[in-house]
Amino acid sequence: MIKVVAKHFIEESRINDFLENAAELVEASLKEDGCISYGLYQDVNDSRVVTIIEEWEDMDSLGDHMASEHFKRIVPSLNEFYEKEGEINVYRKI
Amino acid sequence: MIKVVAKHFIEESRINDFLENAAELVEASLKEDGCISYGLYQDVNDSRVVTIIEEWEDMDSLGDHMASEHFKRIVPSLNEFYEKEGEINVYRKI
Repeated sequence: MIKVVAKHFIEESRINDFLENAAELVEASLKEDGCISYGLYQDVNDSRVVTIIEEWEDMDSLGDHMASEHFKRIVPSLNEFYEKEGEINVYRKI
Repeated sequence: MIKVVAKHFIEESRINDFLENAAELVEASLKEDGCISYGLYQDVNDSRVVTIIEEWEDMDSLGDHMASEHFKRIVPSLNEFYEKEGEINVYRKI
């Protein structure tokens, strides 16, 4: 099982715009083969930190996700909402 | 539901020591009331990045965890294995 943690730093005035656009990404990703979970999480201490936490069956499923139409269309479109560069980590459970 | 992502940067020569000590924290935390999941994850691209991803029923459960004997004993003891300061985020699902 593969876990992805994609942490984003959103401009305060654009948080709602980000969430609206990201909602389509969540909905489409949850329908993909190999997607175990895919959700948006907001930091309780700093609402500008919004993180996508995802679980995939294996690296192939994650690769298919990153090649999907919705990923390639929506992920670049979210760039305009970021205050600074985010952090993406791909993990295996120990 | 509360999700905690605690990202640690471990000195390369101390990764195994960190994992041995953290295993006791995982085992004890999983037995706590309100703990939904608690696991160790290693970055597939950088083995020095080891992250604890946790799910708790609510903030009270997380507070009890941080006040527990095993948390207060083991968490400070892990400091010696870190290359630099880590990042801890506490999230609510949107």
